[in-house]
Amino acid sequence: MTISAGSIKLTTAEQAEEFLNKYDDFLFDCDGVLWAGSKLLPHVIETLDLLRSRGKRLIFVTNNSTKSRKAYTGKFAKFGIQVSEDEIFCSAYSSAVYLKDVIGFPKDKKVLIVGEKGIEEELEAAGIQYVGGTDTTLRKVDPTEEDIDALHYDPSIGAVLCGLDLKITYLKIANALLQIQHKETLFLATNIDSTFPTHGKLLPGAGTIVGTLITSSGRTPVALGKPSEAMMDCIKAKFQFNPERACMVGDRLNTDMVFGTKGGLGTLMVLTGVDKEESIQPENNPLVQPKFYADRLGVLYELLGDK
Amino acid sequence: MTISAGSIKLTTAEQAEEFLNKYDDFLFDCDGVLWAGSKLLPHVIETLDLLRSRGKRLIFVTNNSTKSRKAYTGKFAKFGIQVSEDEIFCSAYSSAVYLKDVIGFPKDKKVLIVGEKGIEEELEAAGIQYVGGTDTTLRKVDPTEEDIDALHYDPSIGAVLCGLDLKITYLKIANALLQIQHKETLFLATNIDSTFPTHGKLLPGAGTIVGTLITSSGRTPVALGKPSEAMMDCIKAKFQFNPERACMVGDRLNTDMVFGTKGGLGTLMVLTGVDKEESIQPENNPLVQPKFYADRLGVLYELLGDK
Repeated sequence: MTISAGSIKLTTAEQAEEFLNKYDDFLFDCDGVLWAGSKLLPHVIETLDLLRSRGKRLIFVTNNSTKSRKAYTGKFAKFGIQVSEDEIFCSAYSSAVYLKDVIGFPKDKKVLIVGEKGIEEELEAAGIQYVGGTDTTLRKVDPTEEDIDALHYDPSIGAVLCGLDLKITYLKIANALLQIQHKETLFLATNIDSTFPTHGKLLPGAGTIVGTLITSSGRTPVALGKPSEAMMDCIKAKFQFNPERACMVGDRLNTDMVFGTKGGLGTLMVLTGVDKEESIQPENNPLVQPKFYADRLGVLYELLGDK
Repeated sequence: MTISAGSIKLTTAEQAEEFLNKYDDFLFDCDGVLWAGSKLLPHVIETLDLLRSRGKRLIFVTNNSTKSRKAYTGKFAKFGIQVSEDEIFCSAYSSAVYLKDVIGFPKDKKVLIVGEKGIEEELEAAGIQYVGGTDTTLRKVDPTEEDIDALHYDPSIGAVLCGLDLKITYLKIANALLQIQHKETLFLATNIDSTFPTHGKLLPGAGTIVGTLITSSGRTPVALGKPSEAMMDCIKAKFQFNPERACMVGDRLNTDMVFGTKGGLGTLMVLTGVDKEESIQPENNPLVQPKFYADRLGVLYELLGDK
């Protein structure tokens, strides 16, 4: 048995068996765990099948706010992974659950979305009124004095919800700022990841867009993606699981492992993503130690096969 | 004589006379001192004339990076104030001075501008090569996968210089990020004001745009506007004044007064802008105490007339 600073590495069938017996619910980060960029990782499908055959519940958690749960099933299908919409928990959905079930957002108020279609679809499904988002009114890259003059505080907007927006403009930022300059307007963020990996590059993430509003307003949003407790509260509210019998599977210490640990769940770190085995060592000062770790998620299938 | 926490309020002709005798060079913040929005403040022109008639040198310092010094003289003219280009020190010019005279930016490298025409004009005048700025290639509000794919690190870019950009897009932010992910690429900001007042609103300032790069890169830029020491160094490099015989006149404690004090200059705070008399009180924890303060700049003319 390899133990790294109290974390158990899954290398034998007995360890894998013991690990599986401890948990009923498995929460998965996606990129770096199931796939890396556009490449499916080895034995992922077999491992998910194995878990299902053992009666485990699977929940796929992603900070990507640009797609709704429904749209996200398409991404899984591209990799040949069959999942249902109900098994997906994305930050756009998390935001909708937070607004509807956690704080009871007033029916007569609207949410101003700075972000993409995924957020609109989830708010729509939750019956929450919204403006902004894919609306093209403020999607003007060369604003005139008149455009800026026309911006104003709208008291019917009860919350600003900001996520990644590839179609960001100065007018959208300025309009959102004018709303949250009023303290009674809620300020929410789908997630605050500063970058995201794609096309072999690290591109500006939701946190970059949200940051424009943090800088200009001096306010801090309620963030609804990993590793925020607000997202864990939303997941628990929906799935009603016992945290002690649930395990968070991820590739990043400072998001996934922190997220699982703070939520009182078990944790499994896989080494197919951002953090490597040496990152777990105490001398490298990780915020948390995962309970278990493995070279890859597929190790579970490789060790246990179809047993 | 009114003394507020060590600051002397100019209320008599004797005080005004003594104040003028202390200094040869006067550095002025503009908005909140000379004008408020689109309104010229009382007796400003008369006061500037009085100072000139006494042989004082006037320097107008502004963090606005969207206009070059030349273009900025037009703004003064609109208020009926006659100034020469040489009397203006804007953050775009400060950036050009920094690149050319302070660090000796290599002739064979280019500056990537995230910002407006004022920066281009000042770099051009200084003979510094640049890309970006008003170039419309990345001014696309709805980027495709191909647009994002085409972004890449360009080793001929030696510095990214970011200021207020009303035509900001995701592609521009992402492109600038890819450059400063390489530590050898300098990261500069014209200024980092989080907001600026206009049209009776507080709109997102240069700091909001610069903040997208700070958040996504984890780097801190050299800021070339008030209250950064880099700007003061540039002003001193150009005007060669004795700081003890120079006075910074402004309306904000945490920018103008800090700027003057850190630079070793005398300070005069006017109450026609952001900060009020009570802000100076020690119990309100101001970062600095101005040496002098007055209800408005025009007080100098009102107390001394054409004497």
